[in-house]
Amino acid sequence: MGRLITLLTDFGTQDSYVGVMKGVIATLCPAAQVIDLSHAIPPQDLYAARFNLLSAYPFFPPGTIHLVVVDPGVGTDRRGIAIELADGLLVGPDNGVFGGVLQQHSVVQAVELANPLYWRGSQPSATFHGRDIFAPVAAHLATGVPIGRLGPLIPEDSLTRLALPPLVKTRRGLEGTIQHIDHFGNGITTIPARAVTSRRWGIEVGNVPVAGMGAYGEISPGEALALVGSHGWVEIAVNQGSARHRLGLAVGDRVVWIGKPCSP
Amino acid sequence: MGRLITLLTDFGTQDSYVGVMKGVIATLCPAAQVIDLSHAIPPQDLYAARFNLLSAYPFFPPGTIHLVVVDPGVGTDRRGIAIELADGLLVGPDNGVFGGVLQQHSVVQAVELANPLYWRGSQPSATFHGRDIFAPVAAHLATGVPIGRLGPLIPEDSLTRLALPPLVKTRRGLEGTIQHIDHFGNGITTIPARAVTSRRWGIEVGNVPVAGMGAYGEISPGEALALVGSHGWVEIAVNQGSARHRLGLAVGDRVVWIGKPCSP
Amino acid sequence: MGRLITLLTDFGTQDSYVGVMKGVIATLCPAAQVIDLSHAIPPQDLYAARFNLLSAYPFFPPGTIHLVVVDPGVGTDRRGIAIELADGLLVGPDNGVFGGVLQQHSVVQAVELANPLYWRGSQPSATFHGRDIFAPVAAHLATGVPIGRLGPLIPEDSLTRLALPPLVKTRRGLEGTIQHIDHFGNGITTIPARAVTSRRWGIEVGNVPVAGMGAYGEISPGEALALVGSHGWVEIAVNQGSARHRLGLAVGDRVVWIGKPCSP
Repeated sequence: MGRLITLLTDFGTQDSYVGVMKGVIATLCPAAQVIDLSHAIPPQDLYAARFNLLSAYPFFPPGTIHLVVVDPGVGTDRRGIAIELADGLLVGPDNGVFGGVLQQHSVVQAVELANPLYWRGSQPSATFHGRDIFAPVAAHLATGVPIGRLGPLIPEDSLTRLALPPLVKTRRGLEGTIQHIDHFGNGITTIPARAVTSRRWGIEVGNVPVAGMGAYGEISPGEALALVGSHGWVEIAVNQGSARHRLGLAVGDRVVWIGKPCSP
Repeated sequence: MGRLITLLTDFGTQDSYVGVMKGVIATLCPAAQVIDLSHAIPPQDLYAARFNLLSAYPFFPPGTIHLVVVDPGVGTDRRGIAIELADGLLVGPDNGVFGGVLQQHSVVQAVELANPLYWRGSQPSATFHGRDIFAPVAAHLATGVPIGRLGPLIPEDSLTRLALPPLVKTRRGLEGTIQHIDHFGNGITTIPARAVTSRRWGIEVGNVPVAGMGAYGEISPGEALALVGSHGWVEIAVNQGSARHRLGLAVGDRVVWIGKPCSP
Repeated sequence: MGRLITLLTDFGTQDSYVGVMKGVIATLCPAAQVIDLSHAIPPQDLYAARFNLLSAYPFFPPGTIHLVVVDPGVGTDRRGIAIELADGLLVGPDNGVFGGVLQQHSVVQAVELANPLYWRGSQPSATFHGRDIFAPVAAHLATGVPIGRLGPLIPEDSLTRLALPPLVKTRRGLEGTIQHIDHFGNGITTIPARAVTSRRWGIEVGNVPVAGMGAYGEISPGEALALVGSHGWVEIAVNQGSARHRLGLAVGDRVVWIGKPCSP
C-alpha cells in the first residue's frame, strides 16, 4: 500500500495543472495514493487554504503527506518547507497555510526545501513550484526519503503563521469571528464547540440574534440557526438555505456567543 | 484489489468535505478504490441525485458500493440505510435517492444503520453523517463486514422512493416528463428508448415539435433534435448548443412522444 | 501496478458521465489508475483540449494512456483512433485534439478503432463514445492488448491536426498568438521560451507593451508582466490578478515579442 498524499490548491480544475502534479507524483512514486482536498480555494486566499487543511487534517491516517500549493509568493524568496508532525507531514510554501494545523499539533522537525536533488530538475520554473518542487518532494517523502535530506532544519518559531483575531470575553459574551463560509453558505465561527456548555444559547452576528439548536430539523426551512458544526466550531446556518445570503455573512464578521437563548 | 466505492453528493468541491470522507475511507479500508460520480448535485436536490445514481449504476462492476450523501434531513430522525442488491450495495439516507435504482433492481436485503460500532465514534455530528456514519459504513462494507451487522433488517416496502409522473398514453401520443437536464443542456425525458420503434418519430415540448433523429450530425449546428440518448431515454438536444437555453427546457416539463415525424 | 490512464473531456463534473467512464475502465481493468487532466474544457473546444493535453503530456510516465473525449462529431463518420508514440498512447476522436502532442512527438503507429471486440457491446450509443468505445479501448490497452488489434493501421499523414497561426518574423519582432487563457487569467502565447535569449525584452498585445520579467514578485500586485511560463511559452500575467480582465485578453489575439524592454 502506498503512502497517502492530499492535495490542496487554488489551481481550479479547468486547466490540467492538478493533473500534471499527479503525473509528476505517479512518475516518482507510482504506489502513492492521491486524494484531492480542494482545488477551488479562491486564488491566493491563504485563510481559506488554512481553514480547509485544518478541517481535513484529523480525518487522515497517520503518515499522510499534506501538500498545499496556494502560493502568491511563488518565484520570490519565500521559503518552501516540509514539516513533520507526530502523525503527518506538511509540504508547501512557508506563507501561513499550515498555521491552523500548527496551532493544534506540535512540530517534530521542519526543513527548508533547499536540496534540488529532490526537485524535478535543478531549474524550477518561476511560477509552478507545485509541479517542480512541492509535488516531487511529496512523492520522494512517499517513497520513504527522510525529511532531513530535503534541506536544512529550520526553527519552529521561524514558521509563518496566519493569525486570526483572538476570542475575547466581553460583558455581552464571548466574541469571535466568522473564519470561513462554506459551499452551502454556512458561516463557521472561531467559537469552539467546547464553549457550548449549556443547552440554551445563541449567537449574535451584526446585532442579529440567532438561536442555538441541536440540528437543522428543529426549525422550518428558510430559518436561521446556530449549531455546533461538524468542523468543531459554532456555525451559523439556514435550514435548506444559505446563511451567507439570508444574513449577509462575510468572512471576518464579528460574532458574539451568548449563553442564553436569543429572543428572535 | 480493493472494493470499489462510488461517491455522489451535493457537497461541491470548494470545501474539503469530500476529501474528508475519502480520508475516513482510506483510514478504515486503505485498499478501497473511490470513484466520484458527482459532487455538484444542486444542494439537496434528491431528484438530480436519483437520476445520476440511476444513470451510473449499470456501468460499475458487481459488488461496487454506491455511497450517496444528498441529505436535507440530516440530524432529523430520517433513517440511514444500506441496501444489498444482486450486483451492488447502496449506502445513504432513506430519502428516495435510491428510488431510481430500486425501480430497476430487486432488493436482497436492507438494513437501518443503527449499529454505532461501524460509525466514526458513537456520537456523530448533527450535520455531517457522510463523514461520521455513511463513509465509515461504506468502508466497513468494503473490508468485508456483512451488511447484517450494520443494524436491523427493514422491509423493502418501507424504503422511501421518489415518484416521477407516470407515462400516460393520450390521443396525441405517449406523454412523459423532462426528468433531468445535463451539463450540455440536453433534456432527458422519461420516454424510454424502447418506445422508439419506428424510424420516423418526433417529440413535442411546450407545443414545439422536435424531429427525432439518429445522431447530432444529421442536422446543422444550432438546430434542435430528439434522439435516443446514452442514458437509455429519449432526450432533446441542440447540435453544438444547449437545448435548455434554445428551447427554454426545465425539469418537470411535459413532453409528448409522437410516432411520426414532426413538421418543423 | 496498473497502467496509468489520463482523462480529458468537456463533460463537466456536474453529471456522472466521467464517473461512468471510470466505472467502465474499472470493470475491464481494475488495476488501471485513472488521473483527471480536466473535465472543464469549454464544450467542444478542440483548441483548449489540444492545449491541455500538450501541456500535460511530458509530465506522465512512459506508457501512460491519454484518453481525450472532446468530440463534437460524435455519431458522425469521424474516426475514432489510437496512436502509439515512443513514450505514450493516445485514444480519442480523430478531430485534431492530439495535434499539439503530434507536433512534438513522432508516431510509431496509428489505428482506426474499428474492431467492436474492444468496445462496450457492438452497438455503441450515438452520443457517448467516451463510454462505449474510447474508455473500453483505453482499458483494454491498459490490460496489455496490442494496439494493432483495435483496428486497421492508418497513415500518419491522414491524422487530423489543428493548425495554429505560425510564428512570423516582422520588422516589429516575432509575431505570435494567444493560444490559451488559464484559470488565473494568464494568457499563454505561441512564443516559445527559447525565443527569450536576452534579459531585456517585452511583448506587445493590442499595442499595449508589457515588460518581460523573471518572476511575479518583481512587480507590484495588480501590474502586468510577461514571463516564461511553466508551460514553456511566453505568457502574459498580472501579479495577484487576471491578465484576461486587466488587459482584455482573448484566445487568438496577436502578440509581438520584442527583444528589448518596453517603455511602459
